[in-house]
Parts: sequence; C-alpha cells; structure tokens
Amino acid sequence: MNALLLSNSRGPDGAYLVHALDAIRALTPSGGQSQTEALFVPFAGVTMTWDDYAAKVAAALAPAHVSLRSVHTFASDAEAQAAIAKTQLIVVGGGNTFQLLAQCRSRGFVEAIRQAVRGGARYLGWSAGANLACPTISTTNDMPIVDPQGFGALDLVDFQINPHYTNALPAGHQGETRNQRIEEYLAANPQSTVLGLPEGDWLQVAERAVTLRGPHEAVWFAHGAAPRALTSGEAVPGAAR
Amino acid sequence: MNALLLSNSRGPDGAYLVHALDAIRALTPSGGQSQTEALFVPFAGVTMTWDDYAAKVAAALAPAHVSLRSVHTFASDAEAQAAIAKTQLIVVGGGNTFQLLAQCRSRGFVEAIRQAVRGGARYLGWSAGANLACPTISTTNDMPIVDPQGFGALDLVDFQINPHYTNALPAGHQGETRNQRIEEYLAANPQSTVLGLPEGDWLQVAERAVTLRGPHEAVWFAHGAAPRALTSGEAVPGAAR
Repeated sequence: MNALLLSNSRGPDGAYLVHALDAIRALTPSGGQSQTEALFVPFAGVTMTWDDYAAKVAAALAPAHVSLRSVHTFASDAEAQAAIAKTQLIVVGGGNTFQLLAQCRSRGFVEAIRQAVRGGARYLGWSAGANLACPTISTTNDMPIVDPQGFGALDLVDFQINPHYTNALPAGHQGETRNQRIEEYLAANPQSTVLGLPEGDWLQVAERAVTLRGPHEAVWFAHGAAPRALTSGEAVPGAAR
Repeated sequence: MNALLLSNSRGPDGAYLVHALDAIRALTPSGGQSQTEALFVPFAGVTMTWDDYAAKVAAALAPAHVSLRSVHTFASDAEAQAAIAKTQLIVVGGGNTFQLLAQCRSRGFVEAIRQAVRGGARYLGWSAGANLACPTISTTNDMPIVDPQGFGALDLVDFQINPHYTNALPAGHQGETRNQRIEEYLAANPQSTVLGLPEGDWLQVAERAVTLRGPHEAVWFAHGAAPRALTSGEAVPGAAR
C-alpha cells in the first residue's frame, strides 16, 4: 500500500497543500513526471459545493501533474465504483468526517475504495480523509452533523489518527483537552492505538511501513501507557493492513 | 417541564456545580427546603468509575438537599426504569456524550427518561447531560469514542445546544472554529437551530419557556441567518416540547 495521510491541508504559511507537494509527487506512479489521472472524494465538504471543492483541489494538485475527476460527477454511483476500481490515485479531502463517511457508505464507496487501495491504487487523504483511512472515525475532532450509520471506515491502517492534533485549549476553556479525549477513546477501546498528528505533519505509508514526516513531533497513545513523542522520520508503531 | 441545562459543571472559580446551586435548589419540588430523592445518570463518565462519579455529584448536591442514587446501582435495567418512572428529579452528568447515549439507549433509558420528564420529573443536566436533552446529540463537542446506534436523544427541547461554547481556537490552530462547525451542522440540518451556550451559563426551562441564565452572552444560530447574541435573562427562541 502507498499512501499519504496528512493532518491537514495547509502548512504554517497557510498555502493549500503546498507543504506536502513533494511527497504528493513522489506518491504518484511516475513520481510527478507525467500525468496521473486521479479520483477525488469531495464529500467532507459541507459549506462549499462539491464542484467548487474539486476545482480547488485540482488547482492545488496541478503542479504535481495530477488531474482530478470528482466521484460525485459520475452518472451513477455504480459508474463511480467502476472508476474507483481502475484508478491509480484516490484523493480524499478534509471537512466533516461524519458527512464524508455517510456519503461514502450510502454510495457503496467504502468497500470500493478499500478494495482499490488494497489492489494497488495510491491513497492521499488529509484531515477527514486521513480519519477515513483508519479502522473507524472514532478519533475525529469533527461535529457529528449527520449519522454515518456506523463508525467503521476504510481500515487501511491498523491504528487511529487524530488529525489537527494539539493538546492546547483556548485560554480559560474548561472542556476536555485533546489528550483527555484520546484517553477516553482508549478507555472505551483499550485494544486500539492512536497517533496524534499535529498540523503540518503527515504519514508516509509504503507497503506496510508507516513513517512520520513533517516539521513537528507527533504523539503515540496506547491504553495504560504514557503518551510517547515520535520525531519526524521515525517509524510509527502501527502498520498498514 | 422543569429543567436546568448547564453548559458545564464549573463556574469561573472552578468550584463544582456551585455556580448553579441556587438554581438547582429552585428546581427541586421543595425549593431546596426539604430532601429531594433524585436519580443520577453517570454514563458520560469514562475515565472515572460510575461509583466515584456518583459520589462526587452527591457531595456537590448535598447543600441543595438532593440525595442521589445512581441508575447503574439497580439490580437490573428494568428496576432502574421503574425507578426513573417514579423519580422527582433526574440528574445527568457530563463527560462523553456518545457513551452517555450509547448506555442510555442500550438500557432502555432514553424512552424511560423522556416519559418521566414529560410526566413531571425535573431534569438537571450539564455538558453531555444538556446535549442529551436535545433532539439529537449532533451538536456535541465530544469525540465519538463509541457508536450510540443512532444520534436521536431525549428531545426534551426543540433546538440543539452546543455546550462549552466558544469561538476561540488555540493560537495558530487551523481546525474549524466552533461557529464553522455549527454552520456545517445547519447546512446539513437546515430546519434545526442551535444555541451556543458558554461555560458558566445555563438554560432554565419552566413549562415551555426557556430562559438564558448566567454571566455570559450566548449565541443563537439558524440556517441562513447571522448568529445572534442572547443576553442573560432573555427568552431563548426555542421551546421545551
């Protein structure tokens, strides 16, 4: 399996997908030297149209010679599923994880994408798109605006990702910290593990190996163990399926 | 219907449930003058035992002459349901909203609590316990650590509450603001409305009327309308069922 799982879409300078563009080039079959036909999954977008979202991502990925077609533009979900089965690269954008999973599930895309990636298609996802690659979406930060009819997701990796990871709270705020939320997740799911992936970082998945990339330390959480910092370039304790 | 729906459990000084203690006294049948036998719902507690949680809340409510029995201490869920049907006051603590709803649903307490409150039992909830009073839990801030098998909740009021409301983000963070999250909820659920309830505030429900109480302005959100500030003492545009 070849994949990039990004915490978020922007680097510290705010430029859209630029921080990981070299890694995205390297993810394509040609290393960004020739055109890659990719499919885009826009369903995490809630307050922008899926057409607009696809156009925005297409523009951002053009420098990597990736051309996108969005899966919502096919005449039917069956046609989109057939295209997913043949594509070289699946790109899943961020936004609301619950709507992303709800749409993918109701359209039969969860199984289609899982099979495609296990069959060799590359996977690029950020934020909600990184959560979708996990066993479940249970470590998302998003508001549960729609019921996805089950939290099970693509299960491409054997651990959970918490994107946009930070343990900071707004000044004076009394809600749970992110670490407390992840501890609660692990108390309810003690067999699971969670990677807190800070903004600007991503995971590079090559075959089964998962490597942390980007400027920041990430944090690995397991039930009953102290959180453990991972440095960029370090192998993540989890693996691709 | 008589209820108090608190954003959170602590005032700015950090003292547990003290900020709303006068309102809690007024919620009891005797106005806090004589003992009220109440039932406590501890299921939002994840990293503390339900026994410990019940003891903590019992100590906090003792000055209001409220004595608590936790619903997890009955010999069976059927016995707890029977007690719920007869109680004067139901107290639902905060923590993780998904686990709270999952436990209430699997034990048959969602319908039992709804019927009890519609039949005259008082309801006191904070944080997750305020979310549970809404039509759904879709405006919680919590991590979806377990699947509650549907997001539908007690439906005691006809609007959604976002507890711990703030629009601030940690410095430098690029995740969605709370207002963006609520806008996404309304885009997906345009018939719904949301009250952003800041920490330290609560809603007083008397018959159908809902009044904002506490030190801070709250914010009312409706699809296609600008967010609207509500001042303490003001009637909330929503209503009890």
